[in-house]
Amino acid sequence: MTKIRVGLGQINPTVGDFSGNLAKILAFIEEAEKKGCDLAIFPELAISGYPVWDLAIKKSFIRENLHSLETIAKATRRLKVSVVVGYIDHGPQGSTKSRNALAWIEKGKVRLRQYKSLLPTYDVFLEEIFFEPGEGHKTLSWRGIRLGTAICEDIWDQQYSIKPLQSLSRNRAQIVVAINASPYHKEKARLRDELLKRQSKRYGFSIIYVNQIGSQDDLIFDGRSLVVDRKGRVLFRAPAFEEGLFVYDWDLKEKNPKTVPLPASVGEPSEIYQALVLGVRDYVTKNKFKSVVIGLSGGIDSALTATLACDALGSDRVLGVTMPGVYSSEGSWKDSEELAKNLGIEFRVYPIKEKYNALLHYYQEERHSPHPNPLPILGRGKGEGEITLTMENLQARLRGLELMYISNEEGRLVLTTGNKSELAMGYCTLYGDMAGGLCVLGDVYKTDVYRLARYRNQIKPVIPQASIEKPPSAELRPNQKDQDSLPPYEILDEILKLYIEKNLTREEILKVLMPQKVSLEVITDAINRVDHNEYKRRQAPPILRVTQKAWFGRRMPITNRFMG
Amino acid sequence: MTKIRVGLGQINPTVGDFSGNLAKILAFIEEAEKKGCDLAIFPELAISGYPVWDLAIKKSFIRENLHSLETIAKATRRLKVSVVVGYIDHGPQGSTKSRNALAWIEKGKVRLRQYKSLLPTYDVFLEEIFFEPGEGHKTLSWRGIRLGTAICEDIWDQQYSIKPLQSLSRNRAQIVVAINASPYHKEKARLRDELLKRQSKRYGFSIIYVNQIGSQDDLIFDGRSLVVDRKGRVLFRAPAFEEGLFVYDWDLKEKNPKTVPLPASVGEPSEIYQALVLGVRDYVTKNKFKSVVIGLSGGIDSALTATLACDALGSDRVLGVTMPGVYSSEGSWKDSEELAKNLGIEFRVYPIKEKYNALLHYYQEERHSPHPNPLPILGRGKGEGEITLTMENLQARLRGLELMYISNEEGRLVLTTGNKSELAMGYCTLYGDMAGGLCVLGDVYKTDVYRLARYRNQIKPVIPQASIEKPPSAELRPNQKDQDSLPPYEILDEILKLYIEKNLTREEILKVLMPQKVSLEVITDAINRVDHNEYKRRQAPPILRVTQKAWFGRRMPITNRFMG
Repeated sequence: MTKIRVGLGQINPTVGDFSGNLAKILAFIEEAEKKGCDLAIFPELAISGYPVWDLAIKKSFIRENLHSLETIAKATRRLKVSVVVGYIDHGPQGSTKSRNALAWIEKGKVRLRQYKSLLPTYDVFLEEIFFEPGEGHKTLSWRGIRLGTAICEDIWDQQYSIKPLQSLSRNRAQIVVAINASPYHKEKARLRDELLKRQSKRYGFSIIYVNQIGSQDDLIFDGRSLVVDRKGRVLFRAPAFEEGLFVYDWDLKEKNPKTVPLPASVGEPSEIYQALVLGVRDYVTKNKFKSVVIGLSGGIDSALTATLACDALGSDRVLGVTMPGVYSSEGSWKDSEELAKNLGIEFRVYPIKEKYNALLHYYQEERHSPHPNPLPILGRGKGEGEITLTMENLQARLRGLELMYISNEEGRLVLTTGNKSELAMGYCTLYGDMAGGLCVLGDVYKTDVYRLARYRNQIKPVIPQASIEKPPSAELRPNQKDQDSLPPYEILDEILKLYIEKNLTREEILKVLMPQKVSLEVITDAINRVDHNEYKRRQAPPILRVTQKAWFGRRMPITNRFMG
Repeated sequence: MTKIRVGLGQINPTVGDFSGNLAKILAFIEEAEKKGCDLAIFPELAISGYPVWDLAIKKSFIRENLHSLETIAKATRRLKVSVVVGYIDHGPQGSTKSRNALAWIEKGKVRLRQYKSLLPTYDVFLEEIFFEPGEGHKTLSWRGIRLGTAICEDIWDQQYSIKPLQSLSRNRAQIVVAINASPYHKEKARLRDELLKRQSKRYGFSIIYVNQIGSQDDLIFDGRSLVVDRKGRVLFRAPAFEEGLFVYDWDLKEKNPKTVPLPASVGEPSEIYQALVLGVRDYVTKNKFKSVVIGLSGGIDSALTATLACDALGSDRVLGVTMPGVYSSEGSWKDSEELAKNLGIEFRVYPIKEKYNALLHYYQEERHSPHPNPLPILGRGKGEGEITLTMENLQARLRGLELMYISNEEGRLVLTTGNKSELAMGYCTLYGDMAGGLCVLGDVYKTDVYRLARYRNQIKPVIPQASIEKPPSAELRPNQKDQDSLPPYEILDEILKLYIEKNLTREEILKVLMPQKVSLEVITDAINRVDHNEYKRRQAPPILRVTQKAWFGRRMPITNRFMG
């Protein structure tokens, strides 16, 4: 054959939803057959969803997934299309681990089973814990073409001594079908493109790369399946963040094929925005929540979170609640109301002022009742009437309590609104603004929150200008501003990126930020606060990942006396 | 030499506390020298503490730890004693990882550097993420003896194709010095004993095994360093959970040496109790908290937690607060007061009844104010006046709020009191009874909570008999009992152990529990609840580990449609 019609099954599976995933795969196979595809390719672990963590070593889970594989094989009995799909296979005799596997299915039979050889174990990946590595990569002859297969990390071979693609090249593969569950971060599409171009040229074969879309807890998968020829030319690109069977007609003899450039949106706010929308939608719907609730402060973080939620779920599934406190500005109410109006969401005002005064009254009364020892008053406040850290936290926690009350009563998922800069610095309250089921912006630096808000407002202005322009404030004390206790976000975010994502020392950060004239003291204080606040992040809900080093892939001890 | 005096430096380092750890090691070396030791051996990563996670790839961290190593080497210049100590070394050129290393120091010089070859990456270990494996294990001649060295996993070689001990045996090692940071669970001492006996006989050399003590976040280390000869005889045992330089005079020519049996306490309540005491003490003191606060319900979990805290910190650093609610029995107050009296701790009564009524009033008022859509009342309650799940949670959260208020105001760490059975079933409230900095009993099954309480009361009866005898209840509704919504704990705990620790399917569990006549329905419901409640555990504070499979080493997705 010199012309093949390739069906790239860029599906969105749900972890553990075997019947749902199976139905989806079968429907796509049928569609591929109808469209006259020669091949229908599905992602890594498409049958079970990915990542499955400890589920991968659960016998009943493996059994169920093998049933699905059988059903898929049977369904192809009378079909012309060949199917490639990812599943979990038993581990070798005596092992408690299983195998991350791929099946090549034709006319009702599994013609080839290929096991993943390179098991990523770093950052957000822990595959060596669950899987035994495969050994050897064979090729097969398919309709006159020599084909090889690979699973995700198998093609990212730079850091490994085993090189699966090299074996495939030695076995004279002409086309390699690579199935993937490759999670998104804002650098990822570019890295992937460079890799595929380099590997196809280096080894002299074409690569069909199929990736899943969708999100699973903290991880977002962007799809963007593609076809690269052996000269490193990208012949086809499936869209990002979109489920579908994408069909490419491939003329293997064509000398000067049309190529498709990397979209300009890569790493841009529009892309990050789409990623977050998908992350919210999938977490909410895959966990069967009908609706969400968000505390609106009038600030930019909660405004952006609510806007993302609307774009993910539709306005009718989003509730905004503003909970003005003693020190809230007029804007906290007004700007929230304007946002809600712009978004067309339900809006409620539940002030915490009276509750706060009532509880504070009880607490202070309790503390004045006779105790064996006098009680020191800690926190920032000094004299009578000043606001202590305790009182700040109490306000934040009363808001958390209110949102959880609504969540329990109405079955809504609480979305938390903290950003990465705040979580880094511990500028957030446990059981207060951190209370909720999903943290939407926890991997987005504050300066990127602004970029995303401006991007979204370009499409249609929904976030009030005041929310974007006013100086950020927690409004837990009179005239409080974030910048009273944090460096300017433009500086802080640079420090945080160098520290968290590049793993630089404070001296190295000082050198990089020389032009901005940042002092070693500011840097030291910031990185020590990052380390010190690990205990808060340990209790955070899942945080959607959009950077190369998210909290989820960063493992730090809580007990840690080391100072940067 | 035919007689050596071995100093087993069973120290308790603190992660990142380079000056503290260094001072400790130097003091122990001095003591060893004074006592005429030939060898002073310190645990794996003794210089930095263990585990350090991502700190292991931080350049400034590695640098600081290498300074300590230099200082230690210099300190031995004029000493007779040789020193073996664990530290972090740079990774090979071009690698971003580092090395888990051991230094053999004599007369101011590092005579041997040995890198850990087997890097545990499963359960609570993730070493492949941070460390490059060593290659090859050499021996050295020391005072006429051929010596080898190994680091922790290097001796647990069953699951690996590389066998460091085999290399040492081929290189004719007579004694192998193994340094360890081997975390405790109740099976561990027995497993370790069996391993060391088997390996020493198999390879024909003696093993000096030195383990750290102390705790680091979720992990507890039990020490129990020992000396095993080449016939698998245990010649010496250092105590469990105790820091010290333990000296053993070893006559290498002795044909019939005295042997020491494994203590009978292994896996028994007395041992688990000691482990938890150490876990609480170290978390509190290493994180520089002066005192703790515990919510006392009158039940056995909080009573045991408070007792453990007293044994760990002393009564004067423990505050007990009882917070009777609308549905609290008289016992919740009375039994708590009796416990506090028995323990000699400060005791306060802060009822939540008024606060609960006040907040509920506000919330219900808010909900009756005009809203665009009618609000369904979810939860367990049906008619007017019944208690909904929302109202139950509100009570628990008001207690969490109260404790966090005290924590903020007085700088006390909140200890949470939930046990493993409750966390498994989701029988706990996020931001309510789950709010706090350390969960003491979260890896102890309810039936073991009873065992521990009875054990402790044998020493001195402090936990009121009523707390032990009354049927467990959350007291969030009238006449509520745990057993209304959970299977009897004797049955439930058996199901949980088989499911969580043995990873059995429901059919396998049914078979094992056949004699107890447990139905498949009960089993299915229990394991599905374990899976469903992953989202709660994700937001739990560190949980002290005492079983082979704790939550910390169990990785499950939140989004998961699989039904056991």
